[in-house]
Amino acid sequence: MTPPARGDHEARRRDVSEAVGRVLADRGFGGLTLRAVAAELGASTGLLTHYFPNKRALVAHALEVLDRQAVGRRRPATEAVGAARGLPALRAALLDVLPLDAAAAADNRTWIGSWDAALGDAELTAGHAERYRRARRRTAELCAQAQELGELPPGRPAADLAAQAQAFVLGLVVQALFAPAEFPPQRQRALLDGFLADLATGR
Amino acid sequence: MTPPARGDHEARRRDVSEAVGRVLADRGFGGLTLRAVAAELGASTGLLTHYFPNKRALVAHALEVLDRQAVGRRRPATEAVGAARGLPALRAALLDVLPLDAAAAADNRTWIGSWDAALGDAELTAGHAERYRRARRRTAELCAQAQELGELPPGRPAADLAAQAQAFVLGLVVQALFAPAEFPPQRQRALLDGFLADLATGR
Repeated sequence: MTPPARGDHEARRRDVSEAVGRVLADRGFGGLTLRAVAAELGASTGLLTHYFPNKRALVAHALEVLDRQAVGRRRPATEAVGAARGLPALRAALLDVLPLDAAAAADNRTWIGSWDAALGDAELTAGHAERYRRARRRTAELCAQAQELGELPPGRPAADLAAQAQAFVLGLVVQALFAPAEFPPQRQRALLDGFLADLATGR
Repeated sequence: MTPPARGDHEARRRDVSEAVGRVLADRGFGGLTLRAVAAELGASTGLLTHYFPNKRALVAHALEVLDRQAVGRRRPATEAVGAARGLPALRAALLDVLPLDAAAAADNRTWIGSWDAALGDAELTAGHAERYRRARRRTAELCAQAQELGELPPGRPAADLAAQAQAFVLGLVVQALFAPAEFPPQRQRALLDGFLADLATGR
């Protein structure tokens, strides 16, 4: 194996990103330090400060890595509905968030772990806020479709239905991670279906 | 001012707890270290290891401190309903969790900050799981009362209604902390009332 060409910045950045991903998977955000990433990479902490001048830059990069992983790991639920619209698409999108298997549980555990670091920094808070805003916007589009299709009642703004749905799944994720035995996949699905049935029969 | 009597362990423990509380309020769980608590206390790290042999013991104590603070800071909503039962009591208990003022936002921010540390340790995870289990049990009692009073439909187990309600409020807390401008107190209340109306008109 030949060593990477000098100046091959892309390859080096990919190595750094992968090392950040492994540290996150192993230790969560609480264990994410320049020192830990350097050790994972077999590099010096000095080299790392070239990429990440401070802890915030490292955390911000870790959040980007998580974003890319999440896109790469779309759960079958989403694939299955494909071009589906309205309530079935809403249900699939919400199922996609829940920790229904080990990979989804690990992803969620890492995301929840990021909240402490993110809330401690205005810029990171803004980044997270924007992520959740985009997710609510996508959810609101599905809610609006479901209203047009007569699957959800027309009386409330789609943005409120979406905020209610996002609140429900985020909170269910937290409960399921702390008490997986009380929230096996079957019960998570049943609770989601109960929530959606209430949403559909509400005003 | 005389120095505290030697062996006045209670007073010293109280000082330590208060220092832990101040570090949490200032820096969150990410900034909770023996060194930070020692500095806050004007004591040596060595003295602190007498109380907390390791990081987990410190985090566990911090969670107890938070528990006591939460009990001491019951919001007016709960006081107002006093002996109320059923749906109004359920609504008041859920309002009590939401970040409707600065103190409640600060409490919630610290709790969310504890999730990363708690999920990284089996014993702390079990402690959090038990906290949320107790909260669901209390919520389920209120849901069962509301069902008996005909305020909530009788078709679903009270435990499921409680899990759904706890999921909703936890997730709403997370969204409101990241985007307070989008979730002012008035909208949080309106979303909670929308959720409860759906729960009441569901099967």
